Amino acid sequence: MKQETNIPYKIYLSENEMPRNWYNVRADMKEKPAPLLDPTTGAPMGFDDLKAVFCDELVRQELDNDTREIPIPQAIRDFYKMYRPSPLVRAYCLEEALQTPAKIYYKFEGNNTSGSHKLNSAIAQAYYAKQQGLTGVTTETGAGQWGTALSMACAYLGLDCKVYMVKCSYEQKPFRREVMRTYGASVTPSPSMDTVVGRKILAEHPGTAGSLGCAISEAVEAASSDPGYRYVLGSVLNQVMLHQSIIGLEAKAALDKYGITPDIIIGCAGGGSNLGGLIAPFMGEKLRGERDYRIIAVEPASCPSFTRGRFAYDFCDTGMVCPLAKMYTLGSSFIPSTSHSGGLRYHGMNSVLSQLYHDGYMEAISVEQTKVFEAAEYFARTEGILPAPESSHAIRAAIDEAMHCKETGEGKTIVFGLTGTGYFDMAAYEKFHNGEMHDFIPSDEELEKSFARLPNLP
Amino acid sequence: MKQETNIPYKIYLSENEMPRNWYNVRADMKEKPAPLLDPTTGAPMGFDDLKAVFCDELVRQELDNDTREIPIPQAIRDFYKMYRPSPLVRAYCLEEALQTPAKIYYKFEGNNTSGSHKLNSAIAQAYYAKQQGLTGVTTETGAGQWGTALSMACAYLGLDCKVYMVKCSYEQKPFRREVMRTYGASVTPSPSMDTVVGRKILAEHPGTAGSLGCAISEAVEAASSDPGYRYVLGSVLNQVMLHQSIIGLEAKAALDKYGITPDIIIGCAGGGSNLGGLIAPFMGEKLRGERDYRIIAVEPASCPSFTRGRFAYDFCDTGMVCPLAKMYTLGSSFIPSTSHSGGLRYHGMNSVLSQLYHDGYMEAISVEQTKVFEAAEYFARTEGILPAPESSHAIRAAIDEAMHCKETGEGKTIVFGLTGTGYFDMAAYEKFHNGEMHDFIPSDEELEKSFARLPNLP
Repeated sequence: MKQETNIPYKIYLSENEMPRNWYNVRADMKEKPAPLLDPTTGAPMGFDDLKAVFCDELVRQELDNDTREIPIPQAIRDFYKMYRPSPLVRAYCLEEALQTPAKIYYKFEGNNTSGSHKLNSAIAQAYYAKQQGLTGVTTETGAGQWGTALSMACAYLGLDCKVYMVKCSYEQKPFRREVMRTYGASVTPSPSMDTVVGRKILAEHPGTAGSLGCAISEAVEAASSDPGYRYVLGSVLNQVMLHQSIIGLEAKAALDKYGITPDIIIGCAGGGSNLGGLIAPFMGEKLRGERDYRIIAVEPASCPSFTRGRFAYDFCDTGMVCPLAKMYTLGSSFIPSTSHSGGLRYHGMNSVLSQLYHDGYMEAISVEQTKVFEAAEYFARTEGILPAPESSHAIRAAIDEAMHCKETGEGKTIVFGLTGTGYFDMAAYEKFHNGEMHDFIPSDEELEKSFARLPNLP
Repeated sequence: MKQETNIPYKIYLSENEMPRNWYNVRADMKEKPAPLLDPTTGAPMGFDDLKAVFCDELVRQELDNDTREIPIPQAIRDFYKMYRPSPLVRAYCLEEALQTPAKIYYKFEGNNTSGSHKLNSAIAQAYYAKQQGLTGVTTETGAGQWGTALSMACAYLGLDCKVYMVKCSYEQKPFRREVMRTYGASVTPSPSMDTVVGRKILAEHPGTAGSLGCAISEAVEAASSDPGYRYVLGSVLNQVMLHQSIIGLEAKAALDKYGITPDIIIGCAGGGSNLGGLIAPFMGEKLRGERDYRIIAVEPASCPSFTRGRFAYDFCDTGMVCPLAKMYTLGSSFIPSTSHSGGLRYHGMNSVLSQLYHDGYMEAISVEQTKVFEAAEYFARTEGILPAPESSHAIRAAIDEAMHCKETGEGKTIVFGLTGTGYFDMAAYEKFHNGEMHDFIPSDEELEKSFARLPNLP
């Protein structure tokens, strides 16, 4: 193995080097993300409009476009120490297997029981709910990563946790469901008959496999109907991007420690939580004109919000009860086909990332799931880690960029986010091995039909 | 969280601090472990007798009772860097939850895709097979941890890998099986109709759930029938203890770095791989009279080889084709009831550990599986990590010792081995949550019946 003597295989920060503040990229944006709008009046939403759904402190973070550094409370930093800092790994074995002159690094967020980066925001959201004296929280989960993370955080703090799990994941991932139950959460397949919106969706789409959008609607309704509960969300929101900035801050600190400057930064993109977190401090430098990077979002071809969506105001949920956000969207009525990357099956994209993409600060590509699983297996066999299908979108793009370097002879430095492990995705791997996996690409007609139902707003 | 300012939450060694040699505890034993005996002649076995089954270099390690430090080849050290050093974690949250004055540390070996410590020996054994120019290796696996680890190591080195998986685990853990297939291994449920010994066992015990002993017999037969293959084993053997000493060496280096001296060291015990590895350097100090420690082996009440077994020569496998080893054993004809700790369902115990236990250097206790799962869930909710059932035996004992400290007011320092994660054990957790888990304790009559079939040797 051709290890460079001055750079460790895995770069770990010491506890003292761990970030003490989250970084709010909005503070450095000239074009701020558009505000959330009230779905009934169309008026911008403020603190008072959102506090019934979200915890007070999280509403403040959601609306704060100006404060650059937001201190991480000590209790959250203590929890972070249970599984952070996460390693920044030099993919020496992958480079050797590819015979590429590129230098590949990945920030590995799978080294905790939730198996993904989701815990970074879960503990923050649970902490603020606890601080506010609430009984519990409700949420949705797609692949189950967010629900697992939230149930862990709630178990730790002694909060009640109600999870609406996208039906196809609930069925594909029974063990993921059991992990949540181990941590004391209640788990309901969505759409369910428990909520008004669930019953409505089931009536319109009987037998639907569900979507993140549906599950969000149900969880919001469940929270709204009990004053001791608030709704929490694992992606899409600005507050989540803020908490996830810990990924990018640690990655940047680790790179800086060894004088490494990346050329390309790659993240998989569903609602944007990992992507937004990973790229935050690099994007900050780019926005401030201090340094330039190529930043690439990778999304599934089955749910291509950046690459084929519209930049428009849309409902965050399928049930059209949540606020309207301006974002790249496939339309809240778009229901993606069943893919094995449940965590990336969201019709929209975080507003901050949408604005940055719109303003040309980043690129986006979409990839098909069979190609993603090819990359996943290749990575597992060379780097040893069994990646989550979601994360493998970034692996696919990183391998493709590294192979491009091989053609051109350029020794570029690539950093990608390895958001989690695939322990609970073996049914998908089995399909892939048996040649039973298919690619799903929505037709133009399907998208046009969905776009036609976008709300009529600026 | 009451963190001591001078001790990090997790102690990571730097790459430079990682051990360069394995430690062979046999070199410090006054009473050496008894030699392996030929099952047909009863004569001690030497290099020439073993090389048909094991790789040459591994036979040398197996027989070497004298060399204290054995260099770890560079290629293995490179592989170790993919997932090592593993963290030594201070269980601050567990201590706080228990309200104990005890200080609890655990060496966490689950941070790799195999999910356990087994990879430490898998890569070593695969490496020596590759060095010898072999085509592949055969093995057995119980819980699936060893098979997963071996298939990872073989994928990395480009070796063929044939795994015989204990039937009850094969059925309880389909996803574990798929992980092995992802890494390119072939997986056969044992007992199978593929081997002479498998057919014999099935004829005698139709419908058996299998055991590690059965699976070993089959894998040995499969290796013996092809000159390009050798058999490798994930536990029980002295060579495995040697490779696993990396666990204890790292743990001790981490403790020494912060001037911490443990009072009690606890490991779960199946065939002895984790236990032997964790305790090795501490036992070395004890054997050399430099320092004293309480060392506790924890085994399942359903398979209590230390606490209820005989110290005698016995077959290592159910099929009675393997060499005879002097060890604590329940008899090779003992078939443990189906428990959820597949990795601890072995009738015997490594010879070195057996000798050390016989000579009074360590203690042993047995625990029932419902108590183990209680501890596992408690640990998951406080420390965040979802532990494997095997590892949770050590957690149970560590919690019990910590609670004893609470009674006496002693602030003892406890170190235990957290060998792996329970991601693939959710079916067992589900049974536990549903109150469907039972404890199985073999009757005296059952054991006597098995002891009666022990070979008649000194």
